[in-house]
Amino acid sequence: MEKAVFYHAGCPVCVSAEHDIIELIGADNVEIVHIGEMRAKIDEAEKAGVKSVPALVTSNGNVLHINFGASIADVKG
Amino acid sequence: MEKAVFYHAGCPVCVSAEHDIIELIGADNVEIVHIGEMRAKIDEAEKAGVKSVPALVTSNGNVLHINFGASIADVKG
Repeated sequence: MEKAVFYHAGCPVCVSAEHDIIELIGADNVEIVHIGEMRAKIDEAEKAGVKSVPALVTSNGNVLHINFGASIADVKG
Repeated sequence: MEKAVFYHAGCPVCVSAEHDIIELIGADNVEIVHIGEMRAKIDEAEKAGVKSVPALVTSNGNVLHINFGASIADVKG
């Protein structure tokens, strides 16, 4: 199975959700991408359908927006 | 570990998220509660901090609001 990808931007809501997701599905099953620090990944996240962070893109391509830290527009800005 | 609880109201967004969550963490690790059908559980969900469904309350009490199906107010109404 391909890994899920957790996109975040380092915001407090993101960090808290990251801990919860790792606890729930295991660190080995998710790739963590900080789109604030890896700005080339913003495009990838948008193409996957991510509208806000934190968000988890599952291995089958579904996007789960979790709580609300920041919109992608805010991360870009 | 106590189980996580996934609260939903039967909406399409909820059903889709339910499948994803079960896929990610396993059906044995999450209790599914349909607050549209089990209205006594609405109070429990609100006390846990659930503002909208679908939402996952982790075993340590954190609330992950996932995408947006309906607000608790809408479910009550």
